[in-house]
Amino acid sequence: MKVNGQAYRTIWVNENGWAVDIIDQTVLPHEWKIVTLETPDDAARAIKDMLVRGAPLIGATAAYGMALAVREDANDGNLRDTAEMLMAARPTAVNLQWAVEKVRDALLPLPTSERSETAYKMAAQICDDDVEVCSNIGNFGLDLIKEIAARKNGDPVNILTHCNAGWLATVDWGTAIAPIYKAHDAGIKVHVWVDETRPRNQGAHLTSFELAEHGVPHTLIVDNAGGHLMQHGMVDLCFVGTDRTTYTGDVCNKVGTYLKALAAHDNGVPFYVCAPSNSIDWKMQDGLKEIPIEERNGEEVSMIQGVLTDGTVTQVSIKPAATPVRNDAFDVTPRKYITGLITERGICAADAKATCALFPELAPN
Amino acid sequence: MKVNGQAYRTIWVNENGWAVDIIDQTVLPHEWKIVTLETPDDAARAIKDMLVRGAPLIGATAAYGMALAVREDANDGNLRDTAEMLMAARPTAVNLQWAVEKVRDALLPLPTSERSETAYKMAAQICDDDVEVCSNIGNFGLDLIKEIAARKNGDPVNILTHCNAGWLATVDWGTAIAPIYKAHDAGIKVHVWVDETRPRNQGAHLTSFELAEHGVPHTLIVDNAGGHLMQHGMVDLCFVGTDRTTYTGDVCNKVGTYLKALAAHDNGVPFYVCAPSNSIDWKMQDGLKEIPIEERNGEEVSMIQGVLTDGTVTQVSIKPAATPVRNDAFDVTPRKYITGLITERGICAADAKATCALFPELAPN
Repeated sequence: MKVNGQAYRTIWVNENGWAVDIIDQTVLPHEWKIVTLETPDDAARAIKDMLVRGAPLIGATAAYGMALAVREDANDGNLRDTAEMLMAARPTAVNLQWAVEKVRDALLPLPTSERSETAYKMAAQICDDDVEVCSNIGNFGLDLIKEIAARKNGDPVNILTHCNAGWLATVDWGTAIAPIYKAHDAGIKVHVWVDETRPRNQGAHLTSFELAEHGVPHTLIVDNAGGHLMQHGMVDLCFVGTDRTTYTGDVCNKVGTYLKALAAHDNGVPFYVCAPSNSIDWKMQDGLKEIPIEERNGEEVSMIQGVLTDGTVTQVSIKPAATPVRNDAFDVTPRKYITGLITERGICAADAKATCALFPELAPN
Repeated sequence: MKVNGQAYRTIWVNENGWAVDIIDQTVLPHEWKIVTLETPDDAARAIKDMLVRGAPLIGATAAYGMALAVREDANDGNLRDTAEMLMAARPTAVNLQWAVEKVRDALLPLPTSERSETAYKMAAQICDDDVEVCSNIGNFGLDLIKEIAARKNGDPVNILTHCNAGWLATVDWGTAIAPIYKAHDAGIKVHVWVDETRPRNQGAHLTSFELAEHGVPHTLIVDNAGGHLMQHGMVDLCFVGTDRTTYTGDVCNKVGTYLKALAAHDNGVPFYVCAPSNSIDWKMQDGLKEIPIEERNGEEVSMIQGVLTDGTVTQVSIKPAATPVRNDAFDVTPRKYITGLITERGICAADAKATCALFPELAPN
């Protein structure tokens, strides 16, 4: 999508032909900074420190991390070690594991001389496939927006989203925001309620940035406000992304998603999760019991990043020194609160029967 | 309660015998600053700009605002005008209206020469009464904590609270935190999950400060996290305050309260609202339809206050310049999600029959 009028993806091969460029998302919306990754450690750090985030983009970055590793040393040992190292960078993201294992398992049978070129090709293909998957999700979600627009007599369709599952979280288009871009581009009036999404404020920093750059009407709200808006008929639809969804329909996503799903359920607001098939975990049945929840650094809670009136980007502490913090980064929304999953093959119920019918080749036996 | 070892109330008459001292709560926990109010406009500004906040303390400040007005001009016109002016400072707080009308209606029948002394006496009595009300709420809530402690085998009772309904929100003790202080002082192990409470961060700034100064174990979390903690059995009980509760049991409180009540209901966690009778609106029946919700300045959402590493208190902007914001400050939790109301006369169900039985003299005909 566009930034300041220029089209970008979130990851691309540097003009030197081998290094990998990404956008440093930790300083958005205050600074626009491109970072070049030259080693698999660079890639792991970009994932761990959230310069890149969002399940699909994490997967793409990890795939390029494998390519950077193989370029240096194409032997089996390095392949396996790099795979382990990359997979440890963000334990919750199932796409990370998916992308790394896909590249590793494809390279291992090849002669070492062919591995580097194949790895770069695979990483590029993972990126192109992600763009296509997101575009398809956008088209299916667009149908839902059209249905609601048809009964709103020209009033905008109000869509609430949590965290950032826009193009910055993927290679392009996004998952949860893809239908919104498709609708906006098709001339359908939409308006997005953007949860700021504490502690890291991905809504305030990234979703707002994306929507502002693309010209989509939106309003930033605190995470506490969505329930109130739903009670008063101000939300027609919720779209969120997911870091990992069990094939039975339990959705792990940024912490706070569960609270919004409860409010949507209480107020009869449809709550859809945009879930590419590679974010679906085909082994897990009980999301609450089985999905590991990453507990991140407490400084994400105690320190908030922003910009001073003179333009300096800085962090401020918001708590007394003696107060401890806890930072669970994700939560699990049980399937019963989810209206449907929007996948690249269509929309289905959040249950095993429906996901397995849509993706029979991935379904467990 | 104590700050740095010294006992304070949140409001008191200055040593000059007529001005009124308060704690500037907008700069806590980073600065400790006493502000002297000399005019009713000072009092209104302290309420509007939230130097004082919390329904009971707003009421006490408004009562002293009436006293400051009468000291200057005890005529009927000034009494009535000041009452209107003060009541407009925070439309949601029912205590504000209650305190102002109580003082105004008591003074109007008196000769003007007696009004000033009476006004100061009434304001002082409102403060003393509030301390007693809060202490009683604390004792009733303590019984609930004791019941849970009895089945926890020495593990701490985990209590979640939203916003600040501690002693800083009242004259002393607090409402929602009063039971926690009583339990802690009685040697019962308690641990408090403190919601940071965006946009103004009263949890991070005030509740954390109070609990840290008093030595009560607590942990700061983002507003998004409470549901996840409840899903995993890490919350035994929720205590929140209220700005206005209908006598039918619908609770208006800081925005986000509704989301936590939904999560508590979904996970079988008791959710109690600490509601002194003067925060109960004996005229309103349907909280969602009737309680006016204050929409506050958007800068509360877009700017966050904190302290830099060099100790400077400042604000940072967290959003792109082009992004608009919306700031509904309260929400209404429907009675069906509330386990009970803790009042100064005891605990009752959140319904008209129960509140009217407990306060027959206030109940509507």
